Amino acid sequence: MRIMMSGFGTVGQGFAEVLILKRGFLEEKYGKVVKIVGVMDSSTYAADASGLSPKDLLERKRSTGKVGTSKYQDPKKVMDSIEYDLLVEVTPTDIKTGGVGLKNIRYALQSGKDVITVNKGPLALNFCELVALAKQNGCKFRFEGSVGGAMPIINLCRECLVGEKISSIRGIFNGTCNFILSKMDNGQSFEQALKEAQQMGYAEADPTNDIEGYDSACKVAILANSIFRKSVTLSDVKITGISSVTSEAIALAASNNKVIRLIGEVSDERLEVAPRLVPKGHPLSITGTLNAAQVVTDLAGPVSISGKGAGSIETASAILSDLVSIMDDRKERRERCQNQ
Amino acid sequence: MRIMMSGFGTVGQGFAEVLILKRGFLEEKYGKVVKIVGVMDSSTYAADASGLSPKDLLERKRSTGKVGTSKYQDPKKVMDSIEYDLLVEVTPTDIKTGGVGLKNIRYALQSGKDVITVNKGPLALNFCELVALAKQNGCKFRFEGSVGGAMPIINLCRECLVGEKISSIRGIFNGTCNFILSKMDNGQSFEQALKEAQQMGYAEADPTNDIEGYDSACKVAILANSIFRKSVTLSDVKITGISSVTSEAIALAASNNKVIRLIGEVSDERLEVAPRLVPKGHPLSITGTLNAAQVVTDLAGPVSISGKGAGSIETASAILSDLVSIMDDRKERRERCQNQ
Repeated sequence: MRIMMSGFGTVGQGFAEVLILKRGFLEEKYGKVVKIVGVMDSSTYAADASGLSPKDLLERKRSTGKVGTSKYQDPKKVMDSIEYDLLVEVTPTDIKTGGVGLKNIRYALQSGKDVITVNKGPLALNFCELVALAKQNGCKFRFEGSVGGAMPIINLCRECLVGEKISSIRGIFNGTCNFILSKMDNGQSFEQALKEAQQMGYAEADPTNDIEGYDSACKVAILANSIFRKSVTLSDVKITGISSVTSEAIALAASNNKVIRLIGEVSDERLEVAPRLVPKGHPLSITGTLNAAQVVTDLAGPVSISGKGAGSIETASAILSDLVSIMDDRKERRERCQNQ
Repeated sequence: MRIMMSGFGTVGQGFAEVLILKRGFLEEKYGKVVKIVGVMDSSTYAADASGLSPKDLLERKRSTGKVGTSKYQDPKKVMDSIEYDLLVEVTPTDIKTGGVGLKNIRYALQSGKDVITVNKGPLALNFCELVALAKQNGCKFRFEGSVGGAMPIINLCRECLVGEKISSIRGIFNGTCNFILSKMDNGQSFEQALKEAQQMGYAEADPTNDIEGYDSACKVAILANSIFRKSVTLSDVKITGISSVTSEAIALAASNNKVIRLIGEVSDERLEVAPRLVPKGHPLSITGTLNAAQVVTDLAGPVSISGKGAGSIETASAILSDLVSIMDDRKERRERCQNQ
């Protein structure tokens, strides 16, 4: 499994660390086959058909700020310069155009390569096009980490709840908002809570994407497309953020044994992100930076899951689970047919 | 896929209903191949190589109290009387000896049949023996519904968290206890709450198995064996129930923004069921009859899941997920090799 990586920021570096941490696991399961043969950041690249050392890449990125020693203009030329099997696309999210991530994913699929991404932009904007491209070219296309980071919501629906008819998914898809609302439960004002989130590194200097609900809405669109087989984009999601949630509203909720949470909802009738009342003790009443989702099915009823929605290693763990799925698939195909 | 069912109580009837509800799904996916060819309750049986109608079985059971029209003494003779591929073992749980369920599972595996069960007795007492038997005879042996009913904790760990090193699982594995403790959160005494649980049908007339923690301990033993690859039985689990939890303790916890929950814990160091303090807003602070579990892993961190721990259709939904896994496995093997 020869891996090309596009992007070497927080998640890309997390994935390199995961390959170091799980080297033993991967070698025991598949032999010495997983290697990074190419990697690009925003301006440099490195490539080596015999494999690049994740440790060396991490050290160079941390000491020089660049992952490679050569500059490039066109990512396609880098991708053409070396044989690879799988693109791991982890460039920064651009929810307006899909950005370079969209171009890279498209190009890899057109070239017959499998793709794993956590990049919400291309998935929220061009999901159906990309899935169709993957199908046309016989490629695997996986994106577990794009919704909920380490919370395996997509694989839960696809693998553990197979056979169930899913009628709705409601969830907390933005840990920054949940941190702020949890702090407000404890008496802080919105402004104080936002400031603390920024100091802790949970919220960016410009927190618009998080607190106005755009980030959550991307995930709602991705779930609508991937689990509900809809054909929607970000602009189909009705969005209300949390900046107008007052301390008075929080206190009123508390007096009714409820909390306010920013809930994304996907069902046949509704695609929406908005602050909602949640009873204390409900699976979606969780506090802190966690993400959570409740899937309602016809047989099992409500099944809920929660986990860390962000973080370098945590999000990279979702890429590992996608990688293992793709490799298991190849391995099973080979072994079974040898046994027949 | 010719199915033999042993047991036709709440879960068995739920499974028959699920086969009716999901007939379209199963036929679309696999063709008209799933049929019940034999079924036993405690004293009667029915068998037909061309398939028994789940609707007729349900009607007869409900009108006469018996699933079959013929009596039997020895389940082995019924199992020998007809060709089948899969035993669905759903006789009542016996946590002292494993009961007839243990004998049926053993016999089916020795005969080279796949087995799905939700029966906690055989799994808590003889897990390793049964897994070894399955391996020896090349059989699939699945038991998702045995822990947490419709909460897919085992498949979450095995499928969605593959590649992760799991260091602990802590969870609420008994909905009756969680209902009682939730009612105590609202000011009821233990005795009042237990009485209400009995009136609602959540607790049995003799509630010992639930409230003294034995039922939770079975699930702890099953998770220790299946996820942690230990070799333990029920007697290895340290057990404290909830009958000694006082209203004063609940009030004291509440004054610290915590609740008391009956938590089962599995780790390399600990196999235990006991009442524990859980912070409000934690994924294990849920109220009502739900089950919940938090899996702690090396990369993803904590991943939590919750769902309905009991119920006829809900538990049968876990049998469906195991059935689909077994059938997918057979189907993939066939298709892939035809394509090579």
